[in-house]
Amino acid sequence: MKQLLEEFETYLNTHLPQSKSFHPNFEKALQEMLRAGGKRFRPMLLLSVVQAKQSLLIKNAMSVALGLELLHTYSLIHDDLPAMDDASLRRGYPTLHTTYDEVTAILVGDALNTHAFNLLANAAFSNDVKIELIKILSSDGGIDGMIIGQAIDCYFENQKVELSQLEFLHIHKTAKLIAASLKMGAIIAGLSDEVQEKLYAFGIDIGLLFQIQDDIIDETQSEEEAGKTTNNDGAKNSFVNLLGLNGAIKSANELANKCKETLNQFDTELNTSLHQLLQKYLYRHQ
Amino acid sequence: MKQLLEEFETYLNTHLPQSKSFHPNFEKALQEMLRAGGKRFRPMLLLSVVQAKQSLLIKNAMSVALGLELLHTYSLIHDDLPAMDDASLRRGYPTLHTTYDEVTAILVGDALNTHAFNLLANAAFSNDVKIELIKILSSDGGIDGMIIGQAIDCYFENQKVELSQLEFLHIHKTAKLIAASLKMGAIIAGLSDEVQEKLYAFGIDIGLLFQIQDDIIDETQSEEEAGKTTNNDGAKNSFVNLLGLNGAIKSANELANKCKETLNQFDTELNTSLHQLLQKYLYRHQ
Repeated sequence: MKQLLEEFETYLNTHLPQSKSFHPNFEKALQEMLRAGGKRFRPMLLLSVVQAKQSLLIKNAMSVALGLELLHTYSLIHDDLPAMDDASLRRGYPTLHTTYDEVTAILVGDALNTHAFNLLANAAFSNDVKIELIKILSSDGGIDGMIIGQAIDCYFENQKVELSQLEFLHIHKTAKLIAASLKMGAIIAGLSDEVQEKLYAFGIDIGLLFQIQDDIIDETQSEEEAGKTTNNDGAKNSFVNLLGLNGAIKSANELANKCKETLNQFDTELNTSLHQLLQKYLYRHQ
Repeated sequence: MKQLLEEFETYLNTHLPQSKSFHPNFEKALQEMLRAGGKRFRPMLLLSVVQAKQSLLIKNAMSVALGLELLHTYSLIHDDLPAMDDASLRRGYPTLHTTYDEVTAILVGDALNTHAFNLLANAAFSNDVKIELIKILSSDGGIDGMIIGQAIDCYFENQKVELSQLEFLHIHKTAKLIAASLKMGAIIAGLSDEVQEKLYAFGIDIGLLFQIQDDIIDETQSEEEAGKTTNNDGAKNSFVNLLGLNGAIKSANELANKCKETLNQFDTELNTSLHQLLQKYLYRHQ
């Protein structure tokens, strides 16, 4: 798992999007938040499925994993804009609109969004596989997923929502892209439709768990510990605000147990690979 | 030509992107700038090529043409943001950040960008054709085209650039997506690589011409006539500012003549179809 993450980091750093022109700093800005680090959770979900079931394809899967990271990174850059969270810190570095300006942050975000699809279209898989991957990413990373989730999150920033609405919000804002990451790995590995859908449903659960944990981190960690602007979610709808800190932790633990049970229903290879991954990224608050 | 435009308008209005949720106005905002009209120049370029060479495919090409319009519309919405042009009027309607807020304008732009690729991936063509279309749109509509052009345009807003740099700017900001529209039509129609490349090169010329004319419109027309915020380009790099109004008109006329000559090198069907289109959209200042 550690080795796979290192391989992905190396791949990312040698395949950063390029943009040659006489613009003095656009290319640097384009690469900055990708270089800055991050958990690489979504790429690792995809790569873990591929490694478990079709390890020979792992090299070809790298560019698709990078596409996922581009899409996720663009969403962070736009979420951090002054009109949204107005965050000053991300991945331990100043946000792009702080270092450069809003124009740069908007355009770098746009560029990473579009370029994610360019990477998928140019990946070394059959066109049939690539079209499936693009359908999923453009749906779960778009108006059927991440973007409507973010729109709801922003709109209801100062209005209380019900628990079912908060779940809808986070399933769309966070969980669908995480579920898509697993399913895209399954498509690359040529797994059956049934396993694809099981992995997708599992991804929704761990996505929700991931978001609850993120809310808990925002409540309990300092900026230095989290490497991003935190505690600015006090007025926002979060599981912590709706359920209380203890309620959120309880909810996270319950969901973590459900995820563990589901994990046991996958075959040994998937189980082992995903278990290692979740051990690292989740189950942090138990 | 008029009939084809009407068909596209009907298609657009019955296939607007949908986003069902409890958000009170995101779906409305998502559709607003698409409904608002616009020249539909890029979709019409694609459709004109398809109609000229493979008219039976015109119905299937509609969703790809719509994808082009989505990508173009997102770029206008983001260009109009307060951090960029801070425009209040677009396509004769208040800009999205005026009617709603900046968050909505940013997210609607993001959504239209992503959804363009969803439309292409789901179009009724072979996966081989669709991957080619996605490669082109994600390149010419991304960091190799429109986005680096816009980044340069913004960065050098208050600095004079040389004519070669201004051409680079507009080839990337405007012409490449126009050229891509023609080439995508050629790919759908199954035309040879040679014709694809000829159409692409022709598109770069008419894209440049289109931009020079846009600069002239910004200089000479009122907001009411143009249906968008105009005359805010005084400090900006434009052909009018670099060459003077007469120089820009002269340059537009020369380029228009070059385009007419190139047009005669295409076969009769393409020539007739594109001539009608350009008659409507270009040659306006002769």
